Amino acid sequence: MLGPGVWSSVRQGLSRSLSRNVGGKAPGKGKKVDISGIYAPVTTPFTATAEVDYGKLEENLHKLGTFPFRGFVVQGSTGEFPFLTSSERLEVVSRVRQAMPKNKLLIAGSGCESTQATVEMTVSMAQVGADAAMVVTPYYYRGRMSSAALIHHYTKVADFSPIPVVLYSVPANTGLDLPVDTVVTLSQHPNIAGIKDSSGDVTRIGLMVHKTKRQDFQVLAGSAGFLLASYAMGAVGGVCALANVLGAQVCQLERLCLTGQWEDAQKLQHRLIEPNTAVTRRFGIPGVKKTMDWFGYHGGPCRAPLQDLSPAEEEALRVDFTSNGWL
Amino acid sequence: MLGPGVWSSVRQGLSRSLSRNVGGKAPGKGKKVDISGIYAPVTTPFTATAEVDYGKLEENLHKLGTFPFRGFVVQGSTGEFPFLTSSERLEVVSRVRQAMPKNKLLIAGSGCESTQATVEMTVSMAQVGADAAMVVTPYYYRGRMSSAALIHHYTKVADFSPIPVVLYSVPANTGLDLPVDTVVTLSQHPNIAGIKDSSGDVTRIGLMVHKTKRQDFQVLAGSAGFLLASYAMGAVGGVCALANVLGAQVCQLERLCLTGQWEDAQKLQHRLIEPNTAVTRRFGIPGVKKTMDWFGYHGGPCRAPLQDLSPAEEEALRVDFTSNGWL
Amino acid sequence: MLGPGVWSSVRQGLSRSLSRNVGGKAPGKGKKVDISGIYAPVTTPFTATAEVDYGKLEENLHKLGTFPFRGFVVQGSTGEFPFLTSSERLEVVSRVRQAMPKNKLLIAGSGCESTQATVEMTVSMAQVGADAAMVVTPYYYRGRMSSAALIHHYTKVADFSPIPVVLYSVPANTGLDLPVDTVVTLSQHPNIAGIKDSSGDVTRIGLMVHKTKRQDFQVLAGSAGFLLASYAMGAVGGVCALANVLGAQVCQLERLCLTGQWEDAQKLQHRLIEPNTAVTRRFGIPGVKKTMDWFGYHGGPCRAPLQDLSPAEEEALRVDFTSNGWL
Amino acid sequence: MLGPGVWSSVRQGLSRSLSRNVGGKAPGKGKKVDISGIYAPVTTPFTATAEVDYGKLEENLHKLGTFPFRGFVVQGSTGEFPFLTSSERLEVVSRVRQAMPKNKLLIAGSGCESTQATVEMTVSMAQVGADAAMVVTPYYYRGRMSSAALIHHYTKVADFSPIPVVLYSVPANTGLDLPVDTVVTLSQHPNIAGIKDSSGDVTRIGLMVHKTKRQDFQVLAGSAGFLLASYAMGAVGGVCALANVLGAQVCQLERLCLTGQWEDAQKLQHRLIEPNTAVTRRFGIPGVKKTMDWFGYHGGPCRAPLQDLSPAEEEALRVDFTSNGWL
Repeated sequence: MLGPGVWSSVRQGLSRSLSRNVGGKAPGKGKKVDISGIYAPVTTPFTATAEVDYGKLEENLHKLGTFPFRGFVVQGSTGEFPFLTSSERLEVVSRVRQAMPKNKLLIAGSGCESTQATVEMTVSMAQVGADAAMVVTPYYYRGRMSSAALIHHYTKVADFSPIPVVLYSVPANTGLDLPVDTVVTLSQHPNIAGIKDSSGDVTRIGLMVHKTKRQDFQVLAGSAGFLLASYAMGAVGGVCALANVLGAQVCQLERLCLTGQWEDAQKLQHRLIEPNTAVTRRFGIPGVKKTMDWFGYHGGPCRAPLQDLSPAEEEALRVDFTSNGWL
Repeated sequence: MLGPGVWSSVRQGLSRSLSRNVGGKAPGKGKKVDISGIYAPVTTPFTATAEVDYGKLEENLHKLGTFPFRGFVVQGSTGEFPFLTSSERLEVVSRVRQAMPKNKLLIAGSGCESTQATVEMTVSMAQVGADAAMVVTPYYYRGRMSSAALIHHYTKVADFSPIPVVLYSVPANTGLDLPVDTVVTLSQHPNIAGIKDSSGDVTRIGLMVHKTKRQDFQVLAGSAGFLLASYAMGAVGGVCALANVLGAQVCQLERLCLTGQWEDAQKLQHRLIEPNTAVTRRFGIPGVKKTMDWFGYHGGPCRAPLQDLSPAEEEALRVDFTSNGWL
Repeated sequence: MLGPGVWSSVRQGLSRSLSRNVGGKAPGKGKKVDISGIYAPVTTPFTATAEVDYGKLEENLHKLGTFPFRGFVVQGSTGEFPFLTSSERLEVVSRVRQAMPKNKLLIAGSGCESTQATVEMTVSMAQVGADAAMVVTPYYYRGRMSSAALIHHYTKVADFSPIPVVLYSVPANTGLDLPVDTVVTLSQHPNIAGIKDSSGDVTRIGLMVHKTKRQDFQVLAGSAGFLLASYAMGAVGGVCALANVLGAQVCQLERLCLTGQWEDAQKLQHRLIEPNTAVTRRFGIPGVKKTMDWFGYHGGPCRAPLQDLSPAEEEALRVDFTSNGWL
Repeated sequence: MLGPGVWSSVRQGLSRSLSRNVGGKAPGKGKKVDISGIYAPVTTPFTATAEVDYGKLEENLHKLGTFPFRGFVVQGSTGEFPFLTSSERLEVVSRVRQAMPKNKLLIAGSGCESTQATVEMTVSMAQVGADAAMVVTPYYYRGRMSSAALIHHYTKVADFSPIPVVLYSVPANTGLDLPVDTVVTLSQHPNIAGIKDSSGDVTRIGLMVHKTKRQDFQVLAGSAGFLLASYAMGAVGGVCALANVLGAQVCQLERLCLTGQWEDAQKLQHRLIEPNTAVTRRFGIPGVKKTMDWFGYHGGPCRAPLQDLSPAEEEALRVDFTSNGWL
């Protein structure tokens, strides 16, 4: 368990630097990390009393660790991060770090609404073992999240972060698209390594790849539904909720794309669209977790207010897998 | 300053009760509080180093306390609550409680994403002196915020809250409208006193008043732009960001509506629309704070990532006030 | 029946003037008409073979003519105008003119996508007896309908129209709000008499009234659901689909508002919200027509692709009327 | 010029059959046409007096006819079809038929709001030489365009059409997505050959390909921005406004995709995204036409209310082409 002292010393030190606008020479920066590959955004299992079930989390990781993933995203949208306390967020990352294979990357979601809280969380994530930080756009005041505001936010975070920063645009949750021009500007920051884009707009993905081609900057697809198309447009991997249940298949799709077997890739991609939609837009995290139960992982309940699937929803979820030959 | 012990004992006790689904006989419930009237949703002043400036907060309250408001909303959207830590949120409420006139109501925004965190925050808000708690809809997983999920969330919070709960629907920030049928169901809860509705849809406001008329339930307009129309449809007051700078005028509009002077009310309402839009949808909290500076209050900077207004924005803001005779 | 010659001579003459940009001294312009009051937007009855049933149209008009409406809107959204040919549109207006009381106003919807077609239709509408023309915003290319494009469009139409023009903004159908600033600019045109606004945003309605108060310009609410609130904000009437079935009640609501009996007005308004939503947003024209059948009018089928209500929809529609005491 | 007799006899005959619901054995149906390939959606040139300039239209076609397009779409959104009269729509198709190479396909946009008008227009389009009809979703009453309504509409049109029907979903204009399940149902109709999908959602495109794979049904991308990704997902071609100015490049992109040269395809695709966005979503038809002027075609003015580009817009348009090496 992370001691409270770490957290508060981080807070005090950063608070001072941030407000003095002192400078952000982050330790250990240099060549950006290569983030290409497939990531499973891990779910957070809970006990019957809604406590984080670290044991089950570790068991899931042991199973997931056998697939050829590039790594794991912890505290992404799939991880129910908005429902965890700051110390739970860090503890989960810490446990995953220990349970997962050493050679894989751990990307930790460290986004908060305020710039200062995001900086603090990012630094703490690094301290508990994250290799990179994925930072969702602030969203509550999305009407005021101009390009200038977003550039300021991400620049501060990247300045102070000891680990590379990955931008994270997920309009289905935030109501906000990180504008392409903003992404292009941010791609020039030495500590911003790439973006996870969950919009599903592959024209946008292609344009980001095109306009950052002179930068050391990588684009990850945010979902398995448009993974093949994203590779075709120049993305280098994906963070796929579906990989929590069909990890082998998502990795196989990656391999087919990377080796130019587009015809087989297409066939496989087609069969993954409905299952993927089911565990993302259609049934969300309760859908992922229910499917995990079917596939031998620890899914279990979500924290409230997320509700269990109704029997009708569960049946529809099952059909999305059976009709494509996965169950 | 609130001791850390209070907070953690709240957490432990509630966590147990919530998970066991034990009871929710909230202390001191009975006849619901009458929340009718005008509220200023107070801003949170910050120092140059982005710390909460409690002194300036108190000075603002002393000034605002001279207007015939029914009370204050603390930690509403205008209060930058997503940018404050849990302890800052409580401390701000505690300070406002002390600085404001005893006979006024303090409604504290206690919404968080998870049900458990919202319960804890609501209980804590009561402990530091809030008279009622205003609870925004959870929003990050808005795609799964079904009526069932929302009813479960608010029922739990109201069950455990020692103070009356006010629902809060603000789609411009959350991308989510609390459905009228859900509101009608929740209005039957003995500890849910009303709703603050910021949608601007007065047909909806009228329908909520109509369908809850047999309940002890009240509707507040969430903005001064449709305050007259809301009164005309049966609302009993409003939470108006504009009241931070034109407090006398907003209270006068209330009086004109309540005394049936609709013609004068209309003239006044008309002159408040553009200033109101300017400090809400158009320029947001940076707009409120800049205007507060003009009107002799402590506005000052927002926390990042919210940015100061550009000179062009500031000029447009000024015109919205001067062209209507307020500056 | 309108002879084909009229139509083609209109086309040729106008085409020449429009393209030469020759001048628009519309005959008979001067003081704008007073459009205040309640209007029923008449439906178009069809025979079993989907031909316009002019006999039933006239019978409906005879019944509707007994209410104290200010007049009728023909070829509004409720009239299924996009499903009628140009000659049907004119013939319907011509028949209504003859069947309705002489002292009432006939406002004819004459909007088309192109400016030229709209001018031609407007002139033709005048020729067949319309007192004013209601012109919906062009919408297919809404992404390019800038303020400049809309000002150009309405100015041309108003220049050439022999009868006053009423702007028509109905975002539920068009995906486009006529911006307030554009409305203010257009209000200065001597042949633009007002606007029918169906957005339901009464802040917007109040602002339009406020900013055009030095002009001879009037605002009509586009629906009965926010009629009281619109009067409270300065609108002078409404075009209400609900008036096709609850004509007396909508007129009574008008009277209560105009005589300052706001309390009774509110009670009546409340009971009209659900029936109104049912015949507009919820069930559309099939809902209006089904209800007309219940209330002794000729409703009947819509033209395809609009479908009859399903039995479940019909039942829900009925509940919206019975639960408010109207059936 | 099409004689008026043809049109009115079509109308009378069809009106009778449609209303009697008599049955739709369309002449000459059998194996569906193969619509794979690239199409330029031709623009409609106008004279200075806003008449259709058939001479310039023909000259454009002669130039465009030299590219290896599969054919032309006439009266798509790019053709300003909502601004043309019925007889202009037919005359334009007739002229294109004569001016274009015999071996290419002519797909004519025949969508209208009502089912009956769409049937009539489709039949007429066939009579003037169209090989297939592209039918946009009805949109003014989009709130009532349920799956049942859309299935009824397209089934009637396909029943009566002498030529194959291509569905057309273009939410940017219509505010309406043709649901995938509806498309799958319609794909089973013997006279529905495919869909042009302009949503840009390639997950959707993949799913349509997947779920119609047992049908004789083809999917065309509606824009050059996601052409490569659409091919990768199983689409067989595209209707690309950009092909009006960069015809060789769009055809080259097709060839690279079809021959599996994905790396080169990606490079080319990247350079086409900004020019494509410029002539579609960003600057619309005025953008296409202005660029056509630059590239030696007859662009010229649009019909009102579409406005010419401002100098600033024109400059931005130019940069989108120059910065990608096309000007």
